Amino acid sequence: MKKIDHIGIAVKDLQQSNELFSRLFNRPPFHQETLESQQLHVSFFQLEDTKIELLEPMSEKSTVHKFLATKGEGTHHVAFEVEDIYAEMERLKGEGFQPLTEKPYEGALGKLVCFFHPKTTNGVLVELCQKKK
Amino acid sequence: MKKIDHIGIAVKDLQQSNELFSRLFNRPPFHQETLESQQLHVSFFQLEDTKIELLEPMSEKSTVHKFLATKGEGTHHVAFEVEDIYAEMERLKGEGFQPLTEKPYEGALGKLVCFFHPKTTNGVLVELCQKKK
Repeated sequence: MKKIDHIGIAVKDLQQSNELFSRLFNRPPFHQETLESQQLHVSFFQLEDTKIELLEPMSEKSTVHKFLATKGEGTHHVAFEVEDIYAEMERLKGEGFQPLTEKPYEGALGKLVCFFHPKTTNGVLVELCQKKK
Repeated sequence: MKKIDHIGIAVKDLQQSNELFSRLFNRPPFHQETLESQQLHVSFFQLEDTKIELLEPMSEKSTVHKFLATKGEGTHHVAFEVEDIYAEMERLKGEGFQPLTEKPYEGALGKLVCFFHPKTTNGVLVELCQKKK
């Protein structure tokens, strides 16, 4: 667990929120992509070596759709950069934290990612992410 | 607006959560303090140049007490490091963002801080923080 890589924020309208956060950060998003497997449109803002990710659900199949329906817009997850995601998943499972998937998978920006259940982490949805080697 | 400085997480029991996050991050908190003016006990974990802050309310006067009562434990705010907090407050006010106080004040770790209303930032409570010079 190296550092905060990014924070994911659930939004209803990506274009509107891109404009809002562009004014907040005084810069435009540097990247946008569609994650079909997660049913998400996402954008990223760079802030030195940290990032903000905005997440808009494409359909009701997205877990972010449910998040918006129950909690409204706001911080969705906190992502930490790791060197070896497989080793870190094992370490955290050994400490009693509950991963949402058995294995890491490809997320935004081509990174390997996995999430841990917020019930085991004081209500915070924790993501691990690793740059591909 | 330089980078993510830290994320604040509202917790019910600081000692229990210190133990939980020590296991998550594989290191203990590097700092604890009491913020009388905010009625908070807080602790910090260092993750390279980013930090996690845990916040436990000392009384019902703390805004974190209300947060816990309505939303439960979880991410409370996202703090961004700034070079000149006065200039950045003015810039953000000019962009239509609503500060919670007229002026910055001393927060944890002796920094100058101010917060912006989550209604103007897609549900995210945004903190600006500046190292004292």
